[in-house]
Amino acid sequence: MKIPTLVPIRLGIRSYDIQIHSGSLGHCAELLSNSVSSDHIVLFTDSVVEALYLQLVADQLKQLARRVDSIVIPAGEASKSVAQCEQLWQKLVELHADRETVVVALGGGVIGDLAGFVAASFARGLTLIQIPTTLLAQVDSSVGGKVGINLPQAKNMVGAFWQPRAVLIDPHVLSTLDARNYRAGLAEVVKYGVIMDESLFDFLEQSLEAINGRDPETLSRIIAWCCQSKAEIVESDERETTGRRAILNYGHTYGHAIEAVFGFGEYLHGEAISIGMTCAARLAVRLGITDAALFERQTAWLTAVGLPTICPTERHAELIAAMKHDKKVAGGRLKLILPTRIGSVEQFAAPDDELLAESLRNTFP
Amino acid sequence: MKIPTLVPIRLGIRSYDIQIHSGSLGHCAELLSNSVSSDHIVLFTDSVVEALYLQLVADQLKQLARRVDSIVIPAGEASKSVAQCEQLWQKLVELHADRETVVVALGGGVIGDLAGFVAASFARGLTLIQIPTTLLAQVDSSVGGKVGINLPQAKNMVGAFWQPRAVLIDPHVLSTLDARNYRAGLAEVVKYGVIMDESLFDFLEQSLEAINGRDPETLSRIIAWCCQSKAEIVESDERETTGRRAILNYGHTYGHAIEAVFGFGEYLHGEAISIGMTCAARLAVRLGITDAALFERQTAWLTAVGLPTICPTERHAELIAAMKHDKKVAGGRLKLILPTRIGSVEQFAAPDDELLAESLRNTFP
Repeated sequence: MKIPTLVPIRLGIRSYDIQIHSGSLGHCAELLSNSVSSDHIVLFTDSVVEALYLQLVADQLKQLARRVDSIVIPAGEASKSVAQCEQLWQKLVELHADRETVVVALGGGVIGDLAGFVAASFARGLTLIQIPTTLLAQVDSSVGGKVGINLPQAKNMVGAFWQPRAVLIDPHVLSTLDARNYRAGLAEVVKYGVIMDESLFDFLEQSLEAINGRDPETLSRIIAWCCQSKAEIVESDERETTGRRAILNYGHTYGHAIEAVFGFGEYLHGEAISIGMTCAARLAVRLGITDAALFERQTAWLTAVGLPTICPTERHAELIAAMKHDKKVAGGRLKLILPTRIGSVEQFAAPDDELLAESLRNTFP
Repeated sequence: MKIPTLVPIRLGIRSYDIQIHSGSLGHCAELLSNSVSSDHIVLFTDSVVEALYLQLVADQLKQLARRVDSIVIPAGEASKSVAQCEQLWQKLVELHADRETVVVALGGGVIGDLAGFVAASFARGLTLIQIPTTLLAQVDSSVGGKVGINLPQAKNMVGAFWQPRAVLIDPHVLSTLDARNYRAGLAEVVKYGVIMDESLFDFLEQSLEAINGRDPETLSRIIAWCCQSKAEIVESDERETTGRRAILNYGHTYGHAIEAVFGFGEYLHGEAISIGMTCAARLAVRLGITDAALFERQTAWLTAVGLPTICPTERHAELIAAMKHDKKVAGGRLKLILPTRIGSVEQFAAPDDELLAESLRNTFP
């Protein structure tokens, strides 16, 4: 099978391409030359990626702009805060950033979301380039224009829809990704299979060995597959108004609550989503929406790649309260995305708190 | 002359109407019934407007939504801060605001800009209704979708383009506006005359007595006239990309610098703009772009309505440094909007610092 290396997202005047090339970090100047036309680039990254790729990318970007500044942010979800955001806005003023400045986000989901929101809001909007370096960011968060920061009680509660000018993905960088972050990304990968694509789910089941061994070709194929899935959804519902895009939130209302209740950074986003999808599938079985086989296949796969599926607390009331702070609440009514079969989900009004609490209990449905 | 009471702004799917009716605050439920469809409204206002109109408007809004919460913010430009913004985001979480919540901004430019940015960024965007209660907000800041907050060094540096669903203007409330804020609004009024409409400028010159006496009919006419001017510009350049919208920044690069250097709140925005337009006109005369008569007519009018035209500091280097932090800088080059004749302005590259400093000196050009 030929692996696609260019996935276009068509959004009218905000259309852009996702370029997927192994080794592309080392020649990103060439790959971005059509997207960047500015005297000034500000490159955001985190303290982990800094040591690995900052110099390489900064040197490349210097071929595109006279002035390239770098800002290094502490790694981890705790950086997606209002306080960090304020520091970055200030820093941009000090660097004399202006409306022509281009923001490049080099890192995982935290960097993409945070630098993306800073780009969206500084001077009412700067051009943004996403160069995701984690599996999670490559298959999900760098694509589709959602950017944002957390409030203490609520994940991604402050943010914007701000489409990047370009997304550049180098699957080769996954070879340096730590095991925990690699696994976390796989939660979003299998999500696409459950919500919309049975053939992807089948492929993921059959490729467990290659996935756990980080086989480069398998990973490139999976990344392109996921990006195409996400592009299709974002094109049909850019701002989450028709309901189509909401299917991407499968497992996320539970997951965001786990992240908030345990404090941002304690659970990686993908880990929380793995637990969240497990709870959502359990609820779907209890409600008779789907059969136990779905729960079993999903749990088996998550477990096989080393992801958690056990809700780590008995504080169910607290979790349910946090779920009700989620953005997926509309008109005061909590909505949940639940699977009906592998490859298909639908939105349902949440059941009463007792059933919600049951879905958090670590029992077979 | 018939005064228009409805000025449409056509921006594709983001089109909306500016409704101008004397006494409309007292029947805003009826006037907004087509724009608001939600269970939950959050009404933002400031400590001054609270005493005058909060109850009236809240009672009206209760006819539109089951739950109406009010948030009162300290009056003054200092509230347009990151710290205040964070408090408001938190407050919305506590109020269980969700994506269906509608934000109503009842107040002057500070409330419109601040509540507008909170609406633009909370849960990636809430519906916004503007009910401006100062002259400045009625003729300028509530219309066109610019929302934002200040950084210590730079006015409106963090923000968004976020169009309201509706704008409701009640000219009658100007009868309770304090004299200083009333005068400040007149700076933005005369700006429209200088930048794009000689007949408006002539009318303003001929109506000085009625303006200083706050004649209701004259004010309604002026407000509608200004809103039509602004609508025309915003329709042709919603996001300030073609240069057309930039003409609204006449006097603003100077004015923002004065506001920042003296600390936000020391000078009202309109006062700073009055001084800024004076400096810009002086520079235009010095550069041979316009003649001294323009400077004289503009200064005479500003003085006649009680606005300041004297730059209040000799710290010119500091002001010039602040000007270079302004958002109107592009590619590192400061641009200025300068008048060529009454009714016409153009964008020019700023001259050297020496000439800029000269334009800040309180001498005849």
